[in-house]
Amino acid sequence: MSTRLGDLVERLGGRLIGNADQTVVGIAPLSDADSSHITFLSNPKLRTQAAQTKAACLILSEKDHEAIADFAGARIVTANPYAYFAHVAQFFATLHTPARSPGAHATAVISPSARVAASAVVGAHVFIDDGAVVEDDCTIEAGCVLGRNVRVGKGTLFHPRVTFLDGCSIGQRGIIHSGAVIGADGFGFANESGKWVKIPQTGAVRIGDDVEIGANTTIDRGALADTIIEEGVKLDNQIQIGHNCHIGAHTAMAGCVGVAGSAIIGKYCTFGGAAMILGHLTIADKVHISSGSLVSRSISEPGQYTGIYPLAKNADWEKSAVIVRNLSSMREKIRDLEKTIQSLGE
Amino acid sequence: MSTRLGDLVERLGGRLIGNADQTVVGIAPLSDADSSHITFLSNPKLRTQAAQTKAACLILSEKDHEAIADFAGARIVTANPYAYFAHVAQFFATLHTPARSPGAHATAVISPSARVAASAVVGAHVFIDDGAVVEDDCTIEAGCVLGRNVRVGKGTLFHPRVTFLDGCSIGQRGIIHSGAVIGADGFGFANESGKWVKIPQTGAVRIGDDVEIGANTTIDRGALADTIIEEGVKLDNQIQIGHNCHIGAHTAMAGCVGVAGSAIIGKYCTFGGAAMILGHLTIADKVHISSGSLVSRSISEPGQYTGIYPLAKNADWEKSAVIVRNLSSMREKIRDLEKTIQSLGE
Amino acid sequence: MSTRLGDLVERLGGRLIGNADQTVVGIAPLSDADSSHITFLSNPKLRTQAAQTKAACLILSEKDHEAIADFAGARIVTANPYAYFAHVAQFFATLHTPARSPGAHATAVISPSARVAASAVVGAHVFIDDGAVVEDDCTIEAGCVLGRNVRVGKGTLFHPRVTFLDGCSIGQRGIIHSGAVIGADGFGFANESGKWVKIPQTGAVRIGDDVEIGANTTIDRGALADTIIEEGVKLDNQIQIGHNCHIGAHTAMAGCVGVAGSAIIGKYCTFGGAAMILGHLTIADKVHISSGSLVSRSISEPGQYTGIYPLAKNADWEKSAVIVRNLSSMREKIRDLEKTIQSLGE
Repeated sequence: MSTRLGDLVERLGGRLIGNADQTVVGIAPLSDADSSHITFLSNPKLRTQAAQTKAACLILSEKDHEAIADFAGARIVTANPYAYFAHVAQFFATLHTPARSPGAHATAVISPSARVAASAVVGAHVFIDDGAVVEDDCTIEAGCVLGRNVRVGKGTLFHPRVTFLDGCSIGQRGIIHSGAVIGADGFGFANESGKWVKIPQTGAVRIGDDVEIGANTTIDRGALADTIIEEGVKLDNQIQIGHNCHIGAHTAMAGCVGVAGSAIIGKYCTFGGAAMILGHLTIADKVHISSGSLVSRSISEPGQYTGIYPLAKNADWEKSAVIVRNLSSMREKIRDLEKTIQSLGE
Repeated sequence: MSTRLGDLVERLGGRLIGNADQTVVGIAPLSDADSSHITFLSNPKLRTQAAQTKAACLILSEKDHEAIADFAGARIVTANPYAYFAHVAQFFATLHTPARSPGAHATAVISPSARVAASAVVGAHVFIDDGAVVEDDCTIEAGCVLGRNVRVGKGTLFHPRVTFLDGCSIGQRGIIHSGAVIGADGFGFANESGKWVKIPQTGAVRIGDDVEIGANTTIDRGALADTIIEEGVKLDNQIQIGHNCHIGAHTAMAGCVGVAGSAIIGKYCTFGGAAMILGHLTIADKVHISSGSLVSRSISEPGQYTGIYPLAKNADWEKSAVIVRNLSSMREKIRDLEKTIQSLGE
Repeated sequence: MSTRLGDLVERLGGRLIGNADQTVVGIAPLSDADSSHITFLSNPKLRTQAAQTKAACLILSEKDHEAIADFAGARIVTANPYAYFAHVAQFFATLHTPARSPGAHATAVISPSARVAASAVVGAHVFIDDGAVVEDDCTIEAGCVLGRNVRVGKGTLFHPRVTFLDGCSIGQRGIIHSGAVIGADGFGFANESGKWVKIPQTGAVRIGDDVEIGANTTIDRGALADTIIEEGVKLDNQIQIGHNCHIGAHTAMAGCVGVAGSAIIGKYCTFGGAAMILGHLTIADKVHISSGSLVSRSISEPGQYTGIYPLAKNADWEKSAVIVRNLSSMREKIRDLEKTIQSLGE
């Protein structure tokens, strides 16, 4: 399944310099590519390597194009070579993935009151409950469970063993990975003489278009209002989103992040792995939290924020940790010194 | 499905001031409630807002009742309005949730040696293994797997895709959310010349009454003895409980908490999100651990404990982190200063 | 099902001192063992207790054997009593676990193009996709999903509800616990004007022999190349391994550890619970990371490394945290003092 460079450019844009009839069968890194591949240069430091690649075609920026004289193959010049690479890779991935036939597997159980589009694929042992809506071109892989009255937008893909519970909705072109649980109860209890009384969680989870949710990630339903995930949000694996959170469009979170209930997070934010956000906070747009940092207060200003204890050899850490524990006595000593010196000076 | 205030008070207690025949159809926050709702005031700061609510009835404390003169609707006076709200919300949630019919779905696989109460609901694609016992009024939703000889107490609810493995037990009125795994092997190995030899995990997990376990939470079976979760414990999502832990009654843990093996945790404790507890520790009753803190030693005294690196703008963090790494040299400098000053003074 | 001591030693090695025809039915700790049990001593501090155990046989080291004169039962002397105990416990666990009959449950769905060994056990509601290979003596428990063209090596055990996705492979004698997801997409996106463009993840996950993977752990497939888990690696529950990681043989990770993409981790390493490793790092062999520590740079030297904020009563932590936030002003003060003293001295 080879593809003409001309066809690629027609589909994805960019300026082709070279033979439009040249074909490629896939994408490969600069060093591994051969004459059947297209490759890309996104880091100017690799220009020398790029000039020597054996690829049939090189995706690169205008600047890199001007700087590289001696590459003999074709070129696609574009403003964002890395994004162009992603689009090309998507194109080839679609070519190479065998399509499932539309329709439901014989072992799937679909409520008579559910509406599943004829173009949708429903895998083995799937359960779709009353009133659920699955739109055109969706794929619901083996072992998924869809609760009552859920709505799954056009072209959305659930990998095997996703749980998508009562009343939740997701927009178009979404991807949910295996083991994710959308719409479990939020963690809400009233304390009565030391015992916990459950507060029913009657909101849902509403997810926009173009959202991707990682394996074993959990997003809780709201207590009264809904938990909201806006369009274009990307969540990695093992993430926990508490009830009534609101995550702004195009924000991305790496693996193991936790967001406590009712946090309001802006658009275009990024969260490094295992960052933790306390509840009822507001985080502005374009805030970037470093991996492993705990956010304990609202952040109103864009920028990069960090709070991690520096790693050291254990023996060195033990020394610094003892001092951290006693920092107030160190401050006392400095104050004493200041006083002594003042009196000496006088 | 409206309910008389008189019936609510008969069921849940509290002192009704107003028309017992007034009906309400649900609960809503102070600001959203209309004349078909009951609402509640648990924070005295919101008294002004409470006086203006359009709700038909206000749940409030004796003190707030005395302080609010001008609210025209009915009142339910109670010692703990927030817990009362929770009970009312439970009542309405039960009214509004469509009940499943008792019995097992045709696709469920139930071992002939299992005993499943006739009043229990067993969903699609459930597997119940040999010798399992599922008591009256249980609901086992789609895709759950129950191992050999498990016991599920009266009225307990498993959401879809719970795994509850061989020999484990849970008491009455429990709730386990989707993706939770109860009774996987604990992490036990002997090291033999650098390689790990598995130590079989032959204990089980024993869970008391009124326990709730969050989505994708894991509780490991014991190595020889059992892992114990006492009554009333509430675990949020994505929590890991190691083998042979013992968690005291009514302790609550927020999302992403990890408890290493053989930790003994008291009653009435709370753990903030992503708190981590090392193994073989003992934590007293009524200990409260802040989010993101690592507990590396036993705690014998009740109280709030914290250990998190303060968040800062990345540039500021880099400055403080460098100094933390070199705190012992800072201490040296202070000692030198003290000596110099002493000699100057002499 | 009792076993002769002579048979145990023949199977597992060690030097038996005592009656080879003495039988035992199981293993128990020193304090709980009775005359039907075998027990073990791995900690010399427990010699007195060991001498008094009622067990029929004591596994112990040469040194402890020489030090304990008065134990009346049989002895098995071995270089590593703890590992010997693990082997004995495995032996008894195998005796006591009822075997499943080979073959596939009637509700399992197996693609005609998959090759499942006749000796394999395939549980209820399992789905095995096109081209998958399941070798001899494997057990695939209820609710597992095996993707296209996966390979599961001889004698490997999947507990219920494992997801093992397209193209992934695992060697012999592996164990994967419930809820684990192997081969979900890595977290790879190119940014295009603030929006994220998915980079297809076309690598797989390759897992060696004798690997154990905990409940709800996730291992992502590689972007282009594969994610590699070498032989003998042991991963606890709730662990996240990013795309293109390479984990060296016999490395063990405790629960809740996160490893970001493209990290290269050596052999014989250990990671405490909730340790986090950033991406694109290289960790040498025999590195040990303490629980809760974040590894933000490569480590080339073996040893123990730590980076955790020391836990304190909340009031004490608040004091130290304020100072940590202002450490650079403390350093300023010390510099000022040094200058003042210098000028005083002159």
